[in-house]
Amino acid sequence: MFCGILFLSIAATLINLSVAGVADNRVDSYSSQNDGSCTLPDALLQEIRGYQPIVNKIVDKIVNGEFSGRTWDSLAELVDTFGARVAGSEQLEKAIDYVVEKMQADGLENVHTENATVPHWVRGYESAELVKPFRKVLPLLGLGSSVGTPRGGIIAEVLAVESFKEFEAIPPEQVRGKIVVFCPAWEGYGRTVVYRSQAASVASRKGAVAALVRSITPFSIGSPHTGQQHYQDDVKKIPVACITVEDAQMLLRKYRRGESMEIHLEMEDRQMEPVVSRNTIGELVGTMVSNTSVVIVSGHLDSWDVGVGAMDDGGGALISWKALTYLKAMGLRPRRTIRAILWTGEEEGLYGGAAYKEAHKAQEVKEFNFFFESDIGTFEPKGLDFVGNADAECIFREIVKLMAPLNATEFATPTDGGPDISHWTTRGFPGASLLNKNEKYFWFHHSAGDTMAVEDLKNLDKCAALWAAAAYVVADLSISMPKDVHP
Amino acid sequence: MFCGILFLSIAATLINLSVAGVADNRVDSYSSQNDGSCTLPDALLQEIRGYQPIVNKIVDKIVNGEFSGRTWDSLAELVDTFGARVAGSEQLEKAIDYVVEKMQADGLENVHTENATVPHWVRGYESAELVKPFRKVLPLLGLGSSVGTPRGGIIAEVLAVESFKEFEAIPPEQVRGKIVVFCPAWEGYGRTVVYRSQAASVASRKGAVAALVRSITPFSIGSPHTGQQHYQDDVKKIPVACITVEDAQMLLRKYRRGESMEIHLEMEDRQMEPVVSRNTIGELVGTMVSNTSVVIVSGHLDSWDVGVGAMDDGGGALISWKALTYLKAMGLRPRRTIRAILWTGEEEGLYGGAAYKEAHKAQEVKEFNFFFESDIGTFEPKGLDFVGNADAECIFREIVKLMAPLNATEFATPTDGGPDISHWTTRGFPGASLLNKNEKYFWFHHSAGDTMAVEDLKNLDKCAALWAAAAYVVADLSISMPKDVHP
Repeated sequence: MFCGILFLSIAATLINLSVAGVADNRVDSYSSQNDGSCTLPDALLQEIRGYQPIVNKIVDKIVNGEFSGRTWDSLAELVDTFGARVAGSEQLEKAIDYVVEKMQADGLENVHTENATVPHWVRGYESAELVKPFRKVLPLLGLGSSVGTPRGGIIAEVLAVESFKEFEAIPPEQVRGKIVVFCPAWEGYGRTVVYRSQAASVASRKGAVAALVRSITPFSIGSPHTGQQHYQDDVKKIPVACITVEDAQMLLRKYRRGESMEIHLEMEDRQMEPVVSRNTIGELVGTMVSNTSVVIVSGHLDSWDVGVGAMDDGGGALISWKALTYLKAMGLRPRRTIRAILWTGEEEGLYGGAAYKEAHKAQEVKEFNFFFESDIGTFEPKGLDFVGNADAECIFREIVKLMAPLNATEFATPTDGGPDISHWTTRGFPGASLLNKNEKYFWFHHSAGDTMAVEDLKNLDKCAALWAAAAYVVADLSISMPKDVHP
Repeated sequence: MFCGILFLSIAATLINLSVAGVADNRVDSYSSQNDGSCTLPDALLQEIRGYQPIVNKIVDKIVNGEFSGRTWDSLAELVDTFGARVAGSEQLEKAIDYVVEKMQADGLENVHTENATVPHWVRGYESAELVKPFRKVLPLLGLGSSVGTPRGGIIAEVLAVESFKEFEAIPPEQVRGKIVVFCPAWEGYGRTVVYRSQAASVASRKGAVAALVRSITPFSIGSPHTGQQHYQDDVKKIPVACITVEDAQMLLRKYRRGESMEIHLEMEDRQMEPVVSRNTIGELVGTMVSNTSVVIVSGHLDSWDVGVGAMDDGGGALISWKALTYLKAMGLRPRRTIRAILWTGEEEGLYGGAAYKEAHKAQEVKEFNFFFESDIGTFEPKGLDFVGNADAECIFREIVKLMAPLNATEFATPTDGGPDISHWTTRGFPGASLLNKNEKYFWFHHSAGDTMAVEDLKNLDKCAALWAAAAYVVADLSISMPKDVHP
């Protein structure tokens, strides 16, 4: 998951601008009250409730039946075969080819890829060592887009602070030539990740030669975490990496005791020319193709270059792909087409989604009915996070209630997940993200710990079942999901 | 903590051989019933219960009063100043000098060191990479006493198994020349650690060129764990290291799918000549020095060479040292001497304890009254783990009840902790270990995660308080702790 998910909360405050041009709306108005209660027409309510037997069947087949365990096995085979799949890498493109082939073998329809230009940043040799007052290796991970050091590295004095606010008060002459260590307290991902994305720019502005940041995680077993960072336009690009929580705290304590410290930092990281990658797409074509829009289920196939991206976002990609596989195998074909999209280049800044948006812009209002995205873990599912207008919300609240057999009827809005679909959901398209028991998500996020060990076989079945069932119902409803699209 | 703690459970089955020659026993016999109930003489019972106000005072001063937070601060300063303190290293010896100086500054008495010869194993450059079918760095930690590879490393095919039993069935011709990966399921430390200690010997016997073992932990964030291993006498020494849980599981899955894999392994690890280190000792001299034996409180000062040994066993060492510091500062001086011993060379096989045992052997029955050791974490204290004869048990059960102000009155026997004191407790000396909420102990054990981030300030206060209070009461009782020492 890229930090772009922050933008999504904005969606909640969007004003409904227009009634979307949907093909088969039967109802004119039904809206969510301030207390969350809805006044849906009885016919629609009964229609939605009528999907319970189909939902039950989907859940049973995926969780207890012939598909049980298959999602985990497929995910394991994918990540064991290709490992990490960072944008620009051969492994990502090989994985895309493999998914295309497997989607075809699964019987998905219109399987194809669509190009997306993505950044190509390469991690080279990386090493950090405290060399004064004693020697200690500091495990680190350079941040996406970071420049490297000169060959042989740099040795510089350490200045350590807890916060940007603390750093603000320090005059530039005390910063110049130093390696600045930022050790912010964990205040949740959204608030803390600014240190990862901005540390280099903030430090560089006062003449620092490099920045080291406490990994953006609430819990650590000596594990550094990577992620994207951004140089502001007007600063000198300096190397930036995350070190472990433990080492950052140690350096801060030592600095505050007045100790003089030096770090030897070497990073061969470098930004290459952008390359063309691909979003990977497969469909379950609806029974009523003409004049209806499609329901998207999605996750991203790319990952960071550490760990193997089983959690971020192999799980989300797999349930999106396999939802279609299982529905097809069960002979369940909804009115509308369900389209699985496995985004590329998400981690560096939602590049796959951006390219897809551009390519489909002319027809987007007509083309897209609803967007699902799973990119905040596939732990035990709890329900669905929604974003969209009040009418769509009313419908979606009823759909979520159908997930009772999975004990996953929690509804929340606005959505807190769904970075790639934010290209649409921030502009009035309705969408949803998978609510799951992801309290430990950031323990593993962008680290060597993002592996199959995080994924539970039974929970992955449940997430796949929820995904398949929710997508089926939305895609099969007699009406399109209401939307108020604005440019 | 070394794996030697396993031996301790033997102590529970020892037969009482003789009544110890204690100086000031007032009671002849009182014993634990099968149901754990005891028939202590009423006078002794009342005497023990009479310590409640003193215990309350000790707890209050350490947890809420002037000493609050000092143990954490002292531990942080120690581990931040010297880092890891592996046997044979300059950092360990510098840390010992520092503790001696600080113990003197704290007013401890008879502060000195006693020599102990310890192994000197050195971790050199270490690297493992899956090079076929794709490249993936495999984070690893060579195991204590492991030999290295030739310069440039070895590249060999992988054979992966889950268990020794599975490996047994494989003929040597299929093993020869290969790197064997052992990926045992976690079945608790005691049962699983045999893979760390024996993998090299087991694999070498069938002609393997190296062994890689799943780290001995139930939970991982891509973190390898080290620890001691032992070559059997008649096998060729081959390099052995632990890799992460995640990578071991991946290699096992790939192997079981029939994939051909090769690993490039390079390790410069090597065993040097043994060196002389030191146990670090300070006392609070008792009011009744002549004809009484001493109460030991202990933990080990050495650590592995990864992380900084804050948990294993900085916390245990610190509460042992600081218990005396705080009692002295409070003007509480018990009848018997309390002696803090900070063992050296524990991790490689209890070398500090062994040397101390040898040096004090002639007088040991007379010299030692009771042994405390904390080496399984200083998380929130729950009570005390005991080992000793039935009479001592009866007394100790009553002492543990005094820890009610800490909500730490759990009593267990035999002890599950106390590796260094097992030199005595397996031979009939009574002892105890700190019961604490250490469910996550092995998450950090022998890894880069063993740092101050594991240690909670308030829990460390509580552990120090329990340690000081229990040691004070045992040392001040009118009678010595009964014991049945056998050779």
